[in-house]
Amino acid sequence: MVQAYLISTGTELLLGSTLDTNSIYLSKSLEELGIKVIGKSVVGDNPEAIEMAIKVGLTVADVVITTGGLGPTLDDLTKEIACQVAGVELKLIPAEERKLREYFERRHRPMPEINLKQAMFPPQASIIPNHYGTAPGMYLPLDNKVIICMPGPPRETEPMYEKYVKDMLSQAYNLSNRRVASRIIRVLGPGESQVEEMLGDIINQAKDYHLALLAQEGEISIRLIAEGNDYDDSVRIVDRVTEQIEHIMGKSVFGYDDDTLSSVVGNLLSSRGVSLAVAESCTGGLLGKMITDIPGSSRYFWGGVITYSNEAKQEILGVKSETLDKYGAVSRETALAMAKGVKGMAGTDMGVAITGIAGPDGGSREKPVGLVYIAVVGDNLEQVREMHFVGSRDAIRTLSAKSALDLLRLQLI
Amino acid sequence: MVQAYLISTGTELLLGSTLDTNSIYLSKSLEELGIKVIGKSVVGDNPEAIEMAIKVGLTVADVVITTGGLGPTLDDLTKEIACQVAGVELKLIPAEERKLREYFERRHRPMPEINLKQAMFPPQASIIPNHYGTAPGMYLPLDNKVIICMPGPPRETEPMYEKYVKDMLSQAYNLSNRRVASRIIRVLGPGESQVEEMLGDIINQAKDYHLALLAQEGEISIRLIAEGNDYDDSVRIVDRVTEQIEHIMGKSVFGYDDDTLSSVVGNLLSSRGVSLAVAESCTGGLLGKMITDIPGSSRYFWGGVITYSNEAKQEILGVKSETLDKYGAVSRETALAMAKGVKGMAGTDMGVAITGIAGPDGGSREKPVGLVYIAVVGDNLEQVREMHFVGSRDAIRTLSAKSALDLLRLQLI
Repeated sequence: MVQAYLISTGTELLLGSTLDTNSIYLSKSLEELGIKVIGKSVVGDNPEAIEMAIKVGLTVADVVITTGGLGPTLDDLTKEIACQVAGVELKLIPAEERKLREYFERRHRPMPEINLKQAMFPPQASIIPNHYGTAPGMYLPLDNKVIICMPGPPRETEPMYEKYVKDMLSQAYNLSNRRVASRIIRVLGPGESQVEEMLGDIINQAKDYHLALLAQEGEISIRLIAEGNDYDDSVRIVDRVTEQIEHIMGKSVFGYDDDTLSSVVGNLLSSRGVSLAVAESCTGGLLGKMITDIPGSSRYFWGGVITYSNEAKQEILGVKSETLDKYGAVSRETALAMAKGVKGMAGTDMGVAITGIAGPDGGSREKPVGLVYIAVVGDNLEQVREMHFVGSRDAIRTLSAKSALDLLRLQLI
Repeated sequence: MVQAYLISTGTELLLGSTLDTNSIYLSKSLEELGIKVIGKSVVGDNPEAIEMAIKVGLTVADVVITTGGLGPTLDDLTKEIACQVAGVELKLIPAEERKLREYFERRHRPMPEINLKQAMFPPQASIIPNHYGTAPGMYLPLDNKVIICMPGPPRETEPMYEKYVKDMLSQAYNLSNRRVASRIIRVLGPGESQVEEMLGDIINQAKDYHLALLAQEGEISIRLIAEGNDYDDSVRIVDRVTEQIEHIMGKSVFGYDDDTLSSVVGNLLSSRGVSLAVAESCTGGLLGKMITDIPGSSRYFWGGVITYSNEAKQEILGVKSETLDKYGAVSRETALAMAKGVKGMAGTDMGVAITGIAGPDGGSREKPVGLVYIAVVGDNLEQVREMHFVGSRDAIRTLSAKSALDLLRLQLI
C-alpha cells in the first residue's frame, strides 16, 4: 500500500486553539483513495523543524504532503525548504507571474513585490492551480518519492486536493483499479455507544469489511470499508452491510457520504414542492444559515424571522402576550404559536420554530439550560418536540438547529 | 524560551476520525507554563516512525513529550524506543512490579506476564505515578534534554500532567518566575501581506519582542510576545508595541486577546444603550447567529428577518417592487430599503442589512458572485458599502456577516 506522511506548517497550529483540519481532511481523503497515512507532523514557521519533518517524511513514506507556508510573507518557507531538501532550484515562472499580477489587478490592489515568490517553482515540478487564493500548489516528483505542497487555508486546500491532487496521485500510483469500496452512513438521534451496542453483531462479525464510528456535533458517522475479491465484490459487500445497518437503525439514518441534514431536507422540500419559513429564538439565525448553506435553497426557502426578544415574537409573529405570560417564552405553546405565526405571515406550506435556553445563564429549576422546544406545522400538521441538550451554548444551539432539520425530515419522508 | 516537541503515537490518530486531544491539551498547558511547543508529530504503532520522531524532537527541542504506546501489548513500544534512542537500558523495578501485582489482585484478575514491561524503567529515570491506569509515566533527563513518556488515554494523561509533569518541568527549567508577557491584537480590513508591509519597521526592529501574524476568515491576528528583564518589564514592552501597532493600523484594530467582532460590537451597543435589528438575504441568518453567539445579547438585539426570497423582502420589509425591478435585489438601493424596513418594523435605534450573491451560481457580468451590499441606518445615519469578496459560498457569507459587524463597529466608536 502506498504510504503518505503529512506535514502541516503554521505556528497557530501549535498553540492549541486552532485545529489542524487539513490533516484530518487529508487522512480521510487519502484513505478513500487507497493511500495509508503513516505519520504526520505539525511544525511552526521554523525552518529547521520544517526541514527535519520533510526529511523524516521522505524516509518513512512514499508521498510527503505539506500544507501551509505558501503565502507571500518571509515566514512562508515550506516550498523553499522542500526544494532545498530535494536539491532542486526555484525559478520565476512567467505564466505564474502573469496570473498573479492579473489577480491583483482584478482586485484593484497593487501587488507587493514580495508576492512574486508565489510564482517561483522548480522546472521539474507540476504547478497546481489554486482557484481560491494566490498561492499555487506544487507536485514535485523525485526518484521514487513525491513531495506535494498545498496552501494552508482549508477553503483552498480541499478544492485543490479534490480537483487536482487526487487525480495526480491516482495516476502516479495506479490507484484507479483498486479493490476497496466504502460508504459513510449518517445517523442522527442515538449516541455513539448506543449505536455501537445496536450494531454489536455487525461489528463483531466483520470479516471482509470494517466499521468505524465517529461522533461529531450530535451526528454519528458510520464509516464502512470493504475489501472483496475485486471492486464489484467490495461494492456488493458495502451494499449488503448498508442494508443490515439501515434495518437496525431505521429512520435515524438520514444520509450517506457527502449528505448533510441541510442537503437532505433541501432535496425533500424541493422534490415535494413544499415551501418553508422559519422562526428562531435561541438559535438566532443558525437554522436559516444551515438551510441556506445549500445553493439554490431559494427554490423552497422563503426566509424567516429571528425573534430574539419577546417584543419581536409578539410584533412580527403575533404570539399573544397571554401565551408568553402564562407559559413563558420557552414553552410548547410559544413554539407552536411561533411556527404558526411565521407560516401564516409567509404563506408557506410549512413553518418551523425553535425556542429554548442556550445558556450559560437564564436557566431555572423548572426550565434548565438546554431545554428547547421545536415546532413543525403544516396545513394538517402540528408537532412540538421537547428536547434536553447538554453542553456549551454553542453545542446547544447547533443541536437545536439540527434537531429542527431532523424533525422536518421525519415529517417529509 | 524552553522548547518542546510533542509526539502522539497510535494508529487510530491517523485515520482522521479520532482527534489527537492530548497534543491540543499539552500545547495549551505548556504555553501557560512558559514552554513553547515548536512542533508535534503523530505516528502509528510503527517503530521506525516513532524512532525518527523522537530523534527529530531531540534535535529541534529541549523537551520531548510522548503520549501513548505505554500499554502492555507488543504494539506498545514508545518507552522502549525512547530508551534505545537515549542509549539507556530498561531494568525491572521491584517497587513497580509490586504495585502492578497489587493492582491486579485488587481487581481479582490474574496479571498477564506481558504486563511486567510496564514495571521496567532505566535507573536514570524518574517514574511518574499513574492514578488512573497501569502504565506509569517516565521522566528521563539526558545531558541537556528531557524525554517524558506519558500514557495515551486523555483521562490518564491530563491528571498525570497536572499533578506531576507540570511541577517537574517547572523545577527543571525554573519557570515559576517566568518573564514572558503576550497579547493578541485583532485586525479586520487589510490583508495579511498588507499588514506585514504596514508593520515592516516594527517587525524588523523586534529585539525584546516577537510578532506573528495569522490570517483566518478575513481577520488578522497579530500575536505579540515580549521577554524583558522581568514580568513587569515584559508587560511594558507589550504595551509599548501595542500602542505603536494601534498608531499604524488605526481603526482596523477591533479587539484584543479573546475579543471577537460580536463581543466588541455587543459591548459597544450595550454601553451606548443602542438597540439593533438585522435584515439578511444572502447570509440567511448568519449575522443574527454571530450577534447571538454572545450570551445576554437580548439586551441590545431585538431580532431580525431572513428575507431570502424577493417576496419576503417586499412582504415583511416593505421593499418596493419598483426598487427590486429597477435596481435588482442585490443593489445599494435594496440594501438601504431593507435596513430602513427592519429598523422601522422593529422600532430599534439601528438597522443593518446584507444583500449579495454568495454563489456558486447566480452571478452575472455586471453583478458577479461575491458582490455584496451592506447597509447601516440610524436615526441620522444612512450608509451603504459595496464589497467584492472572493472565495467559496461559505467564505463569501462569513466575510459578509463580519463586514456588517465591522461597519456597525465603525459607526459606534
